[in-house]
Amino acid sequence: MSKTISVIGLGLIGGSIALDLKKSGFASKVIGTDKSKLHEKEALELSIVDEIMPMDEAICSSELTILSTPVDVSIKLLPHLLDILPDGSVLMDVGSTKSSLIEKVKNHPNRKSFVPSHPMAGTEYSGPSAAFHGLFKDRAAILCNSNESHQIAVHLVSQVYYHLGSRLILMDAESHDEHVGYVSHLSHAISYALAVSVLEKEKDDAAIFNLASGGFASTVRLAKSSVDMWLPIFEQNSKYILPILTTYLEKLTEFKSYLENGESKHLYEFIKEANRIKNKLEKK
Amino acid sequence: MSKTISVIGLGLIGGSIALDLKKSGFASKVIGTDKSKLHEKEALELSIVDEIMPMDEAICSSELTILSTPVDVSIKLLPHLLDILPDGSVLMDVGSTKSSLIEKVKNHPNRKSFVPSHPMAGTEYSGPSAAFHGLFKDRAAILCNSNESHQIAVHLVSQVYYHLGSRLILMDAESHDEHVGYVSHLSHAISYALAVSVLEKEKDDAAIFNLASGGFASTVRLAKSSVDMWLPIFEQNSKYILPILTTYLEKLTEFKSYLENGESKHLYEFIKEANRIKNKLEKK
Repeated sequence: MSKTISVIGLGLIGGSIALDLKKSGFASKVIGTDKSKLHEKEALELSIVDEIMPMDEAICSSELTILSTPVDVSIKLLPHLLDILPDGSVLMDVGSTKSSLIEKVKNHPNRKSFVPSHPMAGTEYSGPSAAFHGLFKDRAAILCNSNESHQIAVHLVSQVYYHLGSRLILMDAESHDEHVGYVSHLSHAISYALAVSVLEKEKDDAAIFNLASGGFASTVRLAKSSVDMWLPIFEQNSKYILPILTTYLEKLTEFKSYLENGESKHLYEFIKEANRIKNKLEKK
Repeated sequence: MSKTISVIGLGLIGGSIALDLKKSGFASKVIGTDKSKLHEKEALELSIVDEIMPMDEAICSSELTILSTPVDVSIKLLPHLLDILPDGSVLMDVGSTKSSLIEKVKNHPNRKSFVPSHPMAGTEYSGPSAAFHGLFKDRAAILCNSNESHQIAVHLVSQVYYHLGSRLILMDAESHDEHVGYVSHLSHAISYALAVSVLEKEKDDAAIFNLASGGFASTVRLAKSSVDMWLPIFEQNSKYILPILTTYLEKLTEFKSYLENGESKHLYEFIKEANRIKNKLEKK
């Protein structure tokens, strides 16, 4: 039952998937392909993949292909990949935005062989050397618009996430994009802005380093995330990110004006309201 | 050489200091006092303190008193504590704001027995049950305006931080308040605003919980922090927090306008600039 699979894009996500699918026995052979020759070489050396092949050849040799490139690359590659996908083979992607990708191939004759998904895990690091076993364990993984894919393809992708140890959630693509806009994409935007602000105002490098333990390290962690991955995510999901950014700017302006005007009671209530997030983040 | 010490305020910070000073042998006996009888009971049960005493009695029985209450309480207690501090005994505080506290007692006859300090460590949890060994290990600890304290008092406090495993930095109080405003207090403000925004827009609790792995958990962590600790910090340090909040709001508005207007090149540059924070956070 073990499969030959291909991974297009050998970064943190693609690399970590490859590692776990090989270890679990789901994949007997992992073929890798990446636009960077350096990443291909690294992935081979780190035993993330068994073999490197040109992209088209890799897909034609595989029962399952995992598309794990930045979302702007994925949307460009997807129609071609579906064109050449062999009969009975399945294509899945793992990007952070789903609606525009699905829209792009909605009339493709091979649409049903494609399963859009999004494993909710990652770190601020990138490239094959950032990949590790267990990245997806106990994390949520979203399958979008599963009724638009062959049932057998959906089943196969559910097995992938089973072997990664993820908790599968089925959702329509618009709901997905809205929810991740709120909880993931907004977090990245505000972290980037924090980094830019502190870099502008705090000219003392030692102070940044030494004082970072006061919570800054945690809030600014996401600002290290790769621009190649995140710029296209913001652009593809701007429809949902812009309104929540507006809300966020309003709330922070409210906070600032309470502080400016010495409105302790309102500031107290604002923080108490924020504290409610604790209950939402802890398992009931 | 082992000392009898008192800890006023048996929360995360005070409790963790007590644990480490006992374990290291610096303190032979730790007396605790807290306005909450429940916290006093918990601290005894958790062996954070050896004995509970009323505040005045505790100080009069100790060679070193550590003031670890929220900063609004500290500023109220400080003059009285210096009034009753026995000859040769030392008082230190561990709060996040320094200038206003120092200003408050600048003419106190016992000012030289007081050493203002700020260990840069913490978690989003509070109370004696949140205390743990090693909280301050390898973290920065700031001593402020050390030339205004008796040299022997400064030496004693440096020993405290030595036993906590902290890296000591000496700084004037205004610089301290400015730096921590940039890197610590701002982070808390933007995290509180994130929590309030997401709670308003995202009505699906399961989505918050399940999708939080996309970076949200890290950015919103500080929003769990106690209002009793943080409200007075914001108020006492508003002089430095307000300007950096203004800068931050400008930067995030800039980000939003790039995204709104499809200015990819500017957005790319913004994120690349933010990425520079990586170098500042990694030890050279």
